[in-house]
Amino acid sequence: MAPTVKVYGWAMSPFVARALLCLEEAGVEYELVPMSREAGDHRQPDFLARNPFGQVPVLEDGDLTIFESRAVARHVLRKHKPELLGSGSPESAAMVDVWLEVEAHQHQTPAGTIVMQCILTPFLGCQRDQAVIDENAAKLTKLFDVYEARLSASRYLAGDSLSLADLSHFPLMRYFMDTEYASLVDERPHVKAWWEELKARPAARRVTEFMPPNFGFGKKPEE
Amino acid sequence: MAPTVKVYGWAMSPFVARALLCLEEAGVEYELVPMSREAGDHRQPDFLARNPFGQVPVLEDGDLTIFESRAVARHVLRKHKPELLGSGSPESAAMVDVWLEVEAHQHQTPAGTIVMQCILTPFLGCQRDQAVIDENAAKLTKLFDVYEARLSASRYLAGDSLSLADLSHFPLMRYFMDTEYASLVDERPHVKAWWEELKARPAARRVTEFMPPNFGFGKKPEE
Repeated sequence: MAPTVKVYGWAMSPFVARALLCLEEAGVEYELVPMSREAGDHRQPDFLARNPFGQVPVLEDGDLTIFESRAVARHVLRKHKPELLGSGSPESAAMVDVWLEVEAHQHQTPAGTIVMQCILTPFLGCQRDQAVIDENAAKLTKLFDVYEARLSASRYLAGDSLSLADLSHFPLMRYFMDTEYASLVDERPHVKAWWEELKARPAARRVTEFMPPNFGFGKKPEE
Repeated sequence: MAPTVKVYGWAMSPFVARALLCLEEAGVEYELVPMSREAGDHRQPDFLARNPFGQVPVLEDGDLTIFESRAVARHVLRKHKPELLGSGSPESAAMVDVWLEVEAHQHQTPAGTIVMQCILTPFLGCQRDQAVIDENAAKLTKLFDVYEARLSASRYLAGDSLSLADLSHFPLMRYFMDTEYASLVDERPHVKAWWEELKARPAARRVTEFMPPNFGFGKKPEE
């Protein structure tokens, strides 16, 4: 029987990969419904009926349609692996929420901007804007200083157990670590150990197979 | 006995107001610990020990210290009013998460930018940037079109019950509705009715008392 869980999107998107990573961690069987960004599949009426904002991923779980990657992640884990949401106590749930919000509001924009400028911009035939990169690298420097202190005191961001707060960093970090700004991680021993452990997880390795370096730009389909 | 729940910050901040609104909705007694942004209280070591990012609000609930306003909101509601997080079923919880993420990632930046440009910039002696305003007004126009369709089908964003997804919009909207772009809400009957209902809630009215128009700029303390 076909899996009842369907993910719509392209897996190299860090947002789609966030959903896939949670499904893999939870051991949920799913179907990745192929879509083409180039063909504009996300702007077609059938997709807009699933997500009026025209963004990936969308998850269908039976009759339920969910968009926004962190909402998808929470749903998958609430249903199949609630310990990754800190379900053991109100205190652990609160800590997962805190560091997931840090990822969403303090990590995503600077890390994403550097990935965009260093990896995507050159392949789109544009000049990278070093002032923008410098500004965001400065933000990440401060952020990773906080992470280094935090990860010196607890093994994971939300405490001593792995959680969605850690996992949620993985997809963007996977590309970020291909830029020259990877040194911001490598020179902080606790952040580096945390990252090495994250990327070595079997679920992360499976998702990485869908995430070619440079987003597959510059690579012919048959290669 | 003094309340064991303390909120650190200045209540006119939309981020602090998000926390206060949830506390008011849940009927939790709390102490708002006065801080001065002008004096840089958020950059002092004692505050940075509570939140290494130096941002408000911080909530202390007994031994637990929580920052990031949506994590604070989730904690308060999980403990005192979980129905506002859709606790009745995985489906309702997922819908709250979806629309809370929409608020965080699609509403906050354009609405906040317009508030900043239309209200704060003039008081800071700077020229407002109409191109920036136009760009964000265009984003909000599309967003409120989606809200109008959504609120035509269900009374609230996450379904037929009020949730954190609705409440979370209140603090920024309170200022946004003082700009000339309030027409984007007023001309959409379902969005307008939703907003009128939100701002009329007793908890919202109490929080609004702390949120003077124009953030109190241009008003002398004794007025």
